Amino acid sequence: MLHLAAPTRPGWLPHALLYTEEILIDHAHCEKKAASTALNLIFRYVDQPDLVGTLSALAREELEHFERVLSWLSARGIALRRLRPAPYAARLHAAVRKPEPHRLLDTLLVCALIEARSCERMRLLADALPDPELAAAYRALLADEARHFTTYVDLARRRFGGDVTDTRLAVLAEHEARCLAEPFAEPRLHG
Amino acid sequence: MLHLAAPTRPGWLPHALLYTEEILIDHAHCEKKAASTALNLIFRYVDQPDLVGTLSALAREELEHFERVLSWLSARGIALRRLRPAPYAARLHAAVRKPEPHRLLDTLLVCALIEARSCERMRLLADALPDPELAAAYRALLADEARHFTTYVDLARRRFGGDVTDTRLAVLAEHEARCLAEPFAEPRLHG
Repeated sequence: MLHLAAPTRPGWLPHALLYTEEILIDHAHCEKKAASTALNLIFRYVDQPDLVGTLSALAREELEHFERVLSWLSARGIALRRLRPAPYAARLHAAVRKPEPHRLLDTLLVCALIEARSCERMRLLADALPDPELAAAYRALLADEARHFTTYVDLARRRFGGDVTDTRLAVLAEHEARCLAEPFAEPRLHG
Repeated sequence: MLHLAAPTRPGWLPHALLYTEEILIDHAHCEKKAASTALNLIFRYVDQPDLVGTLSALAREELEHFERVLSWLSARGIALRRLRPAPYAARLHAAVRKPEPHRLLDTLLVCALIEARSCERMRLLADALPDPELAAAYRALLADEARHFTTYVDLARRRFGGDVTDTRLAVLAEHEARCLAEPFAEPRLHG
């Protein structure tokens, strides 16, 4: 349903569970980055009213998630700190074609795939985290992530049609899976 | 109460009322820019938890205001378009000292002063706009703008103390008034 070309490799979850603290910190950064990406798209495509309004509401939700993760960190006495980012997002965005309108189509679909992967991995965490409060907190986020995937794909469909969108989504989904084939050494949500 | 060093010059309001459409479009850009500025501060000072949480909530409110202004535009059949920005914000930020911690203090106070000026001018619009719906909409925003001023000043006070903050705020308020002394030719919220 989330159009991912490959499931997360079996080794990711045990590694993530060993380093929950770092995964939580990385998760906070991911929500912040998701808000920033949506806001950058608003600046770039400011003359497209439906895109701008939709992405503003989405950015607000990402910030609300960010604040939620901050509260989980704070409740556990964990300080938010800078982390070396996994190369995932940069690799994924490298597949975006530069000329418009390809650039917009690809960017929307790359954003969709990041949401889809977040959703898949948060579900793994929700099912496996020994801390029941944290597991429940992740379960509560899943539906939003899946909805964000749909929001980005729908923005693409409305502009580029179903066929063009689905064909390109399949290509980028293969690329997304390849971006994760080589594991990042440090524990990350998208490692 | 808003610590502005000088009130808006008498010529601004009649000019703004002649070009309400352009003022509304500029206002949308201002709310978007305010969200972006808060988000940039979150990225820069990510290891300061109270600042990060406070500014995330503030950025969400700016985005909610942005969506509100989009709905006013849409109800009036006005398309959001790019505008040449007034030099106000760039002039104002030029007074920010580069070395930390001065940079943080000055940035917080510059943000506070922009909110204060927005509040002052929105009140002028609320009292003078012939469209009663729009006048009421501006009146509804005023309290938020004033609160945002206080939010930024409080963030500064908690870090730098009341005396240092107030002294620097007075200096920057004088600078803010000078940034508006020479009117911008095109109608702008901060023109």
